Amino acid sequence: MAEQLVDHDLHPLEAFARTLADASRIETLRVWESGSSVEDKGGEGAFDPVTEGDRAAERAMRAMIEVHHPDHGIMGEEYPDRPASGRYSWSLDPIDGTRSFICGLPTWVTLIALLDEGAPVLGLIDVPRLSELYVGFGGAARLATNSGTTHLSVSGCTSLADARLSTTDPYLFAGSEAEAFERLRRKARTTRYGHDGYAYARLAAGSLDLIVETGLKPHDYNALIPVVRGAGGFIGDWNGGDDFSGGRVVAAASEALFDEAGRLLGS
Amino acid sequence: MAEQLVDHDLHPLEAFARTLADASRIETLRVWESGSSVEDKGGEGAFDPVTEGDRAAERAMRAMIEVHHPDHGIMGEEYPDRPASGRYSWSLDPIDGTRSFICGLPTWVTLIALLDEGAPVLGLIDVPRLSELYVGFGGAARLATNSGTTHLSVSGCTSLADARLSTTDPYLFAGSEAEAFERLRRKARTTRYGHDGYAYARLAAGSLDLIVETGLKPHDYNALIPVVRGAGGFIGDWNGGDDFSGGRVVAAASEALFDEAGRLLGS
Repeated sequence: MAEQLVDHDLHPLEAFARTLADASRIETLRVWESGSSVEDKGGEGAFDPVTEGDRAAERAMRAMIEVHHPDHGIMGEEYPDRPASGRYSWSLDPIDGTRSFICGLPTWVTLIALLDEGAPVLGLIDVPRLSELYVGFGGAARLATNSGTTHLSVSGCTSLADARLSTTDPYLFAGSEAEAFERLRRKARTTRYGHDGYAYARLAAGSLDLIVETGLKPHDYNALIPVVRGAGGFIGDWNGGDDFSGGRVVAAASEALFDEAGRLLGS
Repeated sequence: MAEQLVDHDLHPLEAFARTLADASRIETLRVWESGSSVEDKGGEGAFDPVTEGDRAAERAMRAMIEVHHPDHGIMGEEYPDRPASGRYSWSLDPIDGTRSFICGLPTWVTLIALLDEGAPVLGLIDVPRLSELYVGFGGAARLATNSGTTHLSVSGCTSLADARLSTTDPYLFAGSEAEAFERLRRKARTTRYGHDGYAYARLAAGSLDLIVETGLKPHDYNALIPVVRGAGGFIGDWNGGDDFSGGRVVAAASEALFDEAGRLLGS
């Protein structure tokens, strides 16, 4: 499951992706620092908040892609997809962790991925409130902060009994999923909740060991894959495969832990 | 339940409390930035991590109190209580949110309270990774950051249906407690997990509306009380009273919401 080196030089696109993150950060921090504008876009009594910052940030990134890379496709959370006329397209989620955002909690992130023929080859997890930028690309992952840039490496934890487990919200698991998560939770060393895409950044940095989630959409997981794999981690579906389309995602600090989680999550 | 003004001038002790937070912050950040040293102090298979930073920070604060206020008592998490020979004593918890700390998640806090004849009259919630210091004192609460100091005020949210609810870990509720929490969770607008004492800071700042927890110890809740009440919030026990000794704590952004939560939590 190691990420393959691509045959194009992606360095110019990595630099461009960072300018997208910069543009998004201006818009999201503007709303964050002023207090968020909350809106309920969910029907059926669901609570699905959207902030003005989310939309403004996506518009800013879309405009930059349309000017500089008019042949690239765009898939965002807030606006309709734009098909690619070439091999590349972008996956954008300006505020992943919208609920944390509206609750004034700092670990919301901006997710940006570049896809090559549909496969994510470059992933950015930007953390505006913490001034952290995680970049996965070309088989490596790095963390850029105000203090400099460091290479990222997962913990290498090989056993669930030693693992720091995380999921965003245990109540998102229903029925057999809830039972599967419970099997994991009972065996894990400790469990933390509430961090959406930021948890995968911390797995890449070696401070979490295992993440299990359900209901993820492409704009939620595309950017995570190059970051986790670039740091030496394993990310796939609950059956131990590579099919993210069902939205059931496992990320682990070692192949052994990935496999152990898969065995407990399977029926 | 409004906090009473005390008859002593506590301003010098507030300034002293800030120097305790500064001393603690040096020790905790030293460990945070180097990667935490984890130790398992729990028996019976429980996971109860302690970091070296936790102990070093408590020692630093104890030493300062012993030098400058030898008549003050000290109650900490890591070392034996020191009885007071006067009216004042300190309640110290250098790292509240130890599990977040060891998982590399930023919302662990330092809790410092001054008690006057056992009642908390001054509370500090320091957030080293976020450079935020919340201070509750004399019937008001303030947030100090690198950008300056602002007065804190709760949201005033009066209805559970509109409320942003938080608890640290839903699996800490057992039996009838779990059922009581579930009644709240189903009616709340949204729920966030994982933030220990930091959630109370965000309630004081108006971005969370309701917090429900169980199993809190005096060093967990003493510092929270002046911050929440100073910002106009309500904090008490699950029965709507003021008995924290059972460790079941509710904090709310209005009296109406505090009462509504109490009705749903009660049998």
